[in-house]
Amino acid sequence: MDVAIPLFDRITALDAVGPYEVLSRVPGARVVFVGERTGVYRSEQNALGLVADATLEEMASPDVVVVPGGMGTRALLGGGPLVEWIRRVHATTEWTTSVCTGSLLLGAAGLLRGLEATTHWASLDLLPGFGAVPVERRVVEQGKVITAAGVSAGIDMALLLAARLAGDEVAQLIQLSIEYDPQPPFDAGSLQSAPPEIVARAQAIRARRAAAG
Amino acid sequence: MDVAIPLFDRITALDAVGPYEVLSRVPGARVVFVGERTGVYRSEQNALGLVADATLEEMASPDVVVVPGGMGTRALLGGGPLVEWIRRVHATTEWTTSVCTGSLLLGAAGLLRGLEATTHWASLDLLPGFGAVPVERRVVEQGKVITAAGVSAGIDMALLLAARLAGDEVAQLIQLSIEYDPQPPFDAGSLQSAPPEIVARAQAIRARRAAAG
Repeated sequence: MDVAIPLFDRITALDAVGPYEVLSRVPGARVVFVGERTGVYRSEQNALGLVADATLEEMASPDVVVVPGGMGTRALLGGGPLVEWIRRVHATTEWTTSVCTGSLLLGAAGLLRGLEATTHWASLDLLPGFGAVPVERRVVEQGKVITAAGVSAGIDMALLLAARLAGDEVAQLIQLSIEYDPQPPFDAGSLQSAPPEIVARAQAIRARRAAAG
Repeated sequence: MDVAIPLFDRITALDAVGPYEVLSRVPGARVVFVGERTGVYRSEQNALGLVADATLEEMASPDVVVVPGGMGTRALLGGGPLVEWIRRVHATTEWTTSVCTGSLLLGAAGLLRGLEATTHWASLDLLPGFGAVPVERRVVEQGKVITAAGVSAGIDMALLLAARLAGDEVAQLIQLSIEYDPQPPFDAGSLQSAPPEIVARAQAIRARRAAAG
């Protein structure tokens, strides 16, 4: 079973590596990082290089696709090799999934029309532009398409996917293996749970950044 | 503020990338991945290459160190450039931290003598060999030394560290930014919470692997 995770510049590294850490532990799964070209792609804050070992062409029919997000998605939404590859391989995947703003790439490939979907909370308003119905849930499963919320949600999504692929027992063994017993020191991980002043500050920061282009 | 994350072959990628995703968002922090040499290091399951941009020598006095774990730690525990670097830079760090079996490297560097510490649940019994007192907690803070439990615990540790470095508000903004509102589909992330049959199977798998060397 081939699991393909596409890389691109300005990717959010955890979007890709969270699901990788889970899915590489599914018996029989082979995770391959792919890119328009092979070689190094730089993360959003530029501090980390991640290596694509195969080109999109070389991974023509993956069983599972996990599309990560990040600021780099913006430059890709207009179409091009990655969006075309997503559209093409989706015809034969068993599961097509995304983390964070990776769902916008699924949308650009035309895969979300009429489906409920999620993404990072700050990008939910972009989903209707792709014909999707935005849903504020951590993981949204619609047939063989699964979208996850922002960044860390990819871990939860991948555990659900591991259960679909290999059963609940295997998914639980993987959860124990990566000791995923989350105990964040604060309760600020969603718009609903974060203190109102934190939400207001986060939204102000994003509005400033958007205004600055 | 320089945050150094050392890489090595057979690293558990999420051990490094979880904290990276948090700490790279701390204002003023510059995260640098370092290695005995620069270039690509391969993850535990070999499917992912991560790039070290600087050598250990080039990062002679980081303010914060985050040592990840993975099967690759085993070959490093006997000493050598990485363990020596950890010992040396610890003299001037503000914080010296680890994720998963990264704490064994702190131990090998002599930093854990007489301290409480944690690591991946399957390696807790190795800590006394380094003079440490093993503690089954997700994050253990002892002066400027913070150790985290297995793999995903690095995210929780890094949020605590972000709060120590930049205050609770910044840490909460980062938590919201990476949408860390964990909702694992199972409750199997620790020896205490996982169903007994899952724990028994996980321990049997690890015993078989250990017996096979």
